[in-house]
Amino acid sequence: MRTKPSLHTILSPGLLHLYDITNSIVVIIDVFRATSTIAAALFHGATKVVPVSSVADCISMGKTLNAVTAGERDGKIIEGLQHGNSPSEYPRSFIEGKTLVITTTNGTRLIQLATDQKATGIITGSFPNISAVCEYLVRQKKNVILGCSAWKDRFNLEDTLFAGAVIKRIRENFTIECDSSLMAAEMYALHQHDLSTFIRKTAHWKRLSAYNLQADMEWCITEDIAHVLPLYTNGILQKG
Amino acid sequence: MRTKPSLHTILSPGLLHLYDITNSIVVIIDVFRATSTIAAALFHGATKVVPVSSVADCISMGKTLNAVTAGERDGKIIEGLQHGNSPSEYPRSFIEGKTLVITTTNGTRLIQLATDQKATGIITGSFPNISAVCEYLVRQKKNVILGCSAWKDRFNLEDTLFAGAVIKRIRENFTIECDSSLMAAEMYALHQHDLSTFIRKTAHWKRLSAYNLQADMEWCITEDIAHVLPLYTNGILQKG
Repeated sequence: MRTKPSLHTILSPGLLHLYDITNSIVVIIDVFRATSTIAAALFHGATKVVPVSSVADCISMGKTLNAVTAGERDGKIIEGLQHGNSPSEYPRSFIEGKTLVITTTNGTRLIQLATDQKATGIITGSFPNISAVCEYLVRQKKNVILGCSAWKDRFNLEDTLFAGAVIKRIRENFTIECDSSLMAAEMYALHQHDLSTFIRKTAHWKRLSAYNLQADMEWCITEDIAHVLPLYTNGILQKG
Repeated sequence: MRTKPSLHTILSPGLLHLYDITNSIVVIIDVFRATSTIAAALFHGATKVVPVSSVADCISMGKTLNAVTAGERDGKIIEGLQHGNSPSEYPRSFIEGKTLVITTTNGTRLIQLATDQKATGIITGSFPNISAVCEYLVRQKKNVILGCSAWKDRFNLEDTLFAGAVIKRIRENFTIECDSSLMAAEMYALHQHDLSTFIRKTAHWKRLSAYNLQADMEWCITEDIAHVLPLYTNGILQKG
């Protein structure tokens, strides 16, 4: 009988180097809000999304690609960019057929690390596109790393809960032995029916609530409202 | 009203650098088995315990201090050392009045990092001495870092559960806002009544079970059977 591929969860980008990911697909998870917004833009017809780490790169890449540029700090659009990081800013009526260049802190950092460590494949995931992510992972039959983007490398619960939600759906297809996956699955099982209440206790919810982003965050934890698979190749995210 | 001191939980030594610990007491947690064994030795009358990171240091320090030397790899006593890392090896009849030099991997590394980052104070904790740890932390009224030693920097559940157990007891005395503390407290609340069953699902239990160390591990998760406070100063752990 063929051994099932492995699945590991890493709780911070700062721990990715502990794993050999050359034979793994890495799922970049940044629920609040990068990978939710990426799902929104691609689901609503964006041609591609280009994640970049610096504001300067965002501006110059935006010009080169004649693209929409996006980035926020402290709840405000960054000077020199056009839009923010909210999924609500990218309805089909606006983003269809366009390229989005987006600068985020945590999510982009993890994509870069996964690229540097030569992951076999990189996709992004959040609750709005959870089914697309799970279907892809099961179909690929390769090892999986569920990579939580965390917050400045500090553990966060929203990414962990998403990892747990994925594990719950696909655990039968993988060999799962790490404590972080066990914990993530248990935390999700504990809160799957009160996610919207429990999430209000997390540090990131409180941080973003100060900028009145509650509706954004509710969207980010809603399953399957942006059924799309963002596949990362050569610096670009496109519908897989 | 005076602000309560803060309490944070770090899930891996690899994340300690994210925190300014110069005003904090760091609790080194290595439930399986370093900080459990340290509690056993000091509770049973060892004069001091000297944790060192290498086997060579263990041997030379053992000679200098005329001490008992201890260290294991893969369930066997390391060549050149006298004893293993099991708490059961240090009953009062053997260890009273003696110095123990012990080499461990995960726990020692975290002690070293906390020292390098100039923690205000360092103590060690595990279930056997949980009350002594909690009483000390409440009495000190200083900021606290609950530092999980993890396994080769990878998240583990036994250390997290201990952090959660501490948080449950002393949460009213601290300001606790980080998601890792929230998670640890929830995982402990979920399993405090079936700890001995749940712990069998963890990676470390499975790893050490291969060396028939189940009785050791049961001891390590038993509360308050070694009521002692191991206080670390200038490289030495002594009864506080």
